[in-house]
Amino acid sequence: MIKMNPSYSVVLRVRIPNRPGMLGKVLSVIGRAGGDVGAIAIVGFEDGYIIRDIEASAPDLDEAKLITAAVKRIEEIRVLNVADRTLLLHQGGKLEVMSKVPLKTRYDLAMAYTPGVARVAMAIHESPERAYELTIKKNTVAIVTDGTAVLGLGDIGPRAALPVMEGKALLFKNFGGVDAFPICLDTRDPEEIVKTVKWISPGFGGVMLEDISSPRCFGIESRLKKELDIPVFHSDQHSGAVAVLAGLSNALRVVGKGLAEVRIVVCGLGAAGIGLIRLLGAAGAGPIIGCDRAGILYRGRRENMHPVKEEIALVTNPSGLRGGVADALAGADVFIGVSEARSVHPDAFRQMAKDAIVFALANPVPEVLPGDVEPFARVIATGRPDYDNQISNTLCFPGLFRGAFDCRAREINREMLIAAAGAIAACVVPEELMESNIIPSLFNRQVSGKVAQAVSEAAIRTGVGTLAHKQAYFSG
Amino acid sequence: MIKMNPSYSVVLRVRIPNRPGMLGKVLSVIGRAGGDVGAIAIVGFEDGYIIRDIEASAPDLDEAKLITAAVKRIEEIRVLNVADRTLLLHQGGKLEVMSKVPLKTRYDLAMAYTPGVARVAMAIHESPERAYELTIKKNTVAIVTDGTAVLGLGDIGPRAALPVMEGKALLFKNFGGVDAFPICLDTRDPEEIVKTVKWISPGFGGVMLEDISSPRCFGIESRLKKELDIPVFHSDQHSGAVAVLAGLSNALRVVGKGLAEVRIVVCGLGAAGIGLIRLLGAAGAGPIIGCDRAGILYRGRRENMHPVKEEIALVTNPSGLRGGVADALAGADVFIGVSEARSVHPDAFRQMAKDAIVFALANPVPEVLPGDVEPFARVIATGRPDYDNQISNTLCFPGLFRGAFDCRAREINREMLIAAAGAIAACVVPEELMESNIIPSLFNRQVSGKVAQAVSEAAIRTGVGTLAHKQAYFSG
Repeated sequence: MIKMNPSYSVVLRVRIPNRPGMLGKVLSVIGRAGGDVGAIAIVGFEDGYIIRDIEASAPDLDEAKLITAAVKRIEEIRVLNVADRTLLLHQGGKLEVMSKVPLKTRYDLAMAYTPGVARVAMAIHESPERAYELTIKKNTVAIVTDGTAVLGLGDIGPRAALPVMEGKALLFKNFGGVDAFPICLDTRDPEEIVKTVKWISPGFGGVMLEDISSPRCFGIESRLKKELDIPVFHSDQHSGAVAVLAGLSNALRVVGKGLAEVRIVVCGLGAAGIGLIRLLGAAGAGPIIGCDRAGILYRGRRENMHPVKEEIALVTNPSGLRGGVADALAGADVFIGVSEARSVHPDAFRQMAKDAIVFALANPVPEVLPGDVEPFARVIATGRPDYDNQISNTLCFPGLFRGAFDCRAREINREMLIAAAGAIAACVVPEELMESNIIPSLFNRQVSGKVAQAVSEAAIRTGVGTLAHKQAYFSG
Repeated sequence: MIKMNPSYSVVLRVRIPNRPGMLGKVLSVIGRAGGDVGAIAIVGFEDGYIIRDIEASAPDLDEAKLITAAVKRIEEIRVLNVADRTLLLHQGGKLEVMSKVPLKTRYDLAMAYTPGVARVAMAIHESPERAYELTIKKNTVAIVTDGTAVLGLGDIGPRAALPVMEGKALLFKNFGGVDAFPICLDTRDPEEIVKTVKWISPGFGGVMLEDISSPRCFGIESRLKKELDIPVFHSDQHSGAVAVLAGLSNALRVVGKGLAEVRIVVCGLGAAGIGLIRLLGAAGAGPIIGCDRAGILYRGRRENMHPVKEEIALVTNPSGLRGGVADALAGADVFIGVSEARSVHPDAFRQMAKDAIVFALANPVPEVLPGDVEPFARVIATGRPDYDNQISNTLCFPGLFRGAFDCRAREINREMLIAAAGAIAACVVPEELMESNIIPSLFNRQVSGKVAQAVSEAAIRTGVGTLAHKQAYFSG
């Protein structure tokens, strides 16, 4: 069911007798053990032997170990080393801080550093706004995490969160041209997180909060939004929500239903679920029913609550439904899961309305496997790249910050999020819009540019965006 | 006296009648006004006119304005724009955060980001030390400032400090291959600075404190050194001190005196002066006399004191000298100024010992101009690139952190600083060592590598350096 995933690639360094047929033998053993052979390279020779690196992909780590074991059992073959390609890729980290200016001569140095830089510093001291023109501030975002809710892994701490934040920074640069730097915090106290972000803010043009657990994330974000004059954005709440709204509006087009009419079940009331419910509400969605481990959220529920859920209870589930996810799904048009692997039984989807839409977005293993829900749903999406319709927050945040930076927005408001969702949805042209194609590919290079433009326009329209200003000339 | 400085280059955009001789006329006007013409480019044509960009260097900003005014007075010539080349160079900042891994296909994405990165994160969660292997931590330094003592400019705040910190990051990458990121703090409270640095430390392999005013800098550095397990280093105290120790030991070789025998006057008791006095003491220097605005520092002095100066008073000036800098200089062998522009009258140097050494390091204008002190000193050094013997902290910190990172040092201790100074000094080979050549050029590409090696060796010798550890293989 779960398909071959290139993230489990191993590189076997093997010593093979230098005789015809020996390499073929190794390759066929790998194949029989379930491995998919990739690149093969000669590393060196020892008398009578060839040392080769053989890359093999396997569905998971255990399979990779089985492949290794099988190769080890071949007579006359010695496995010298087994490298994990993903871990190799991450060696030394994935980012570097590069110079944009030449530094070859003392004249370069005199302009980029002392004494020239003193004039640049004084120009900013005299007009603080010029930091946007003369420093990296304009294009630089801090990706801030405390490591309490990393991917599906949970509370693994700031050190273990760093490779993930580096990954986000790659996406920012690659898809949005935004310079992003990871800031992993050795505190999980909301007050201290707020203080740290405020204290380090002068050098950044924006802050993306990331993988901070719920409900702490809500207070942290709203305080920082109030207290800083640069965009602050908690990605877990909003990035996925924007991508879902984009995918959902296209899915509704496919099935011919309107956002205001459908009944939507949101399963999972963490940061993602709550951000989604708020965005759907702002976008004009009809009745929404939220569910979590304690079942359907309703006014006055006592179990598994916090103040933000209480707020959400006031604006969802207007008919006061109670029960479990299956009860919520009876007659519902849309299911959106942002919870946990295999958390909903396939049978629960049987009672959904005709032309149902199921977004099972838990990662890497969805709430329900697409194959299991196919009989009951017309449009199915997941967060995975190996099924149709990958709903990914990567569609949102690089273009969103690009747009916010381009118009120097003071904040990121809901209108900008809705505009971003509209731009993503519009990247699927009508003639290509169908059940299996409701959302553009991550590698559709149009997406971030279109998102940026729509976001900039929305920012200027709502008065939070300002125009770019004049270049650094002195009046001669 | 102060020579042509390329940091004051302007680019004049002028509209010139398209007739022979007109360009020559403009260029000769620039020359007569004291400008040095650089690149000339054609930007476009308007009927009967050519639009050209003409680059002109001038000794300072006022001169640049005079040049512009002179060109404006030429008949038929119109100055359309005047751009400051240094400010143009800094447009948009000087750093960018780049990806070191490819991100072209969904397979790349699956390894660099989800789902592959989850395995990397878990590997670190299980063995936190692996952050050094699988993230940017190993090679990344935070350059932290509160903007209270920036260059010679003083307390200009964190925003105006940013271009300077970006400049430091350039030097780190260019000379040491170290990835450095500026963190400009919106607080000047020592307690808050310590907290912020601790909270953001998980993602960094080292911290360079920079341009934090004295005496706050001493407590901040010593607390962070105690509380963090990564190198913490206040550059203002130590980087310049290392470069001075390097230059001084070579200068002493030239004049044939020993460090333990000479009498040294250190003028300026800010971070640089105090760091220098401590390092000279640790390196085995003889009697040192410190001076500041209140004159010679002695035990029991009341004026212009703080606890660190009191400590310094205990270990300097053993004969209890009192008075001003001139009194200190009578009979002294070495003067090292780390104070302010033109702060010592040339006459004060008359009474120095034979073969005197004068390091006047205030930047950009030294304590005494080399020409004025030449009659009394055999070796003269400044911090400027346009005189012989430039003593620059840039000789120290890139190689120092390179060395600390290479052996994964837990801290930077005094032995490492002394080793760095020795390595810098040794870059001037004996046959080239002379009065006008006591210190290697900033662009001597050997320096940082030699410093790194010496620092690594000293770290391992003193037990703060650990060996690099194994690569990321899983046992297959």
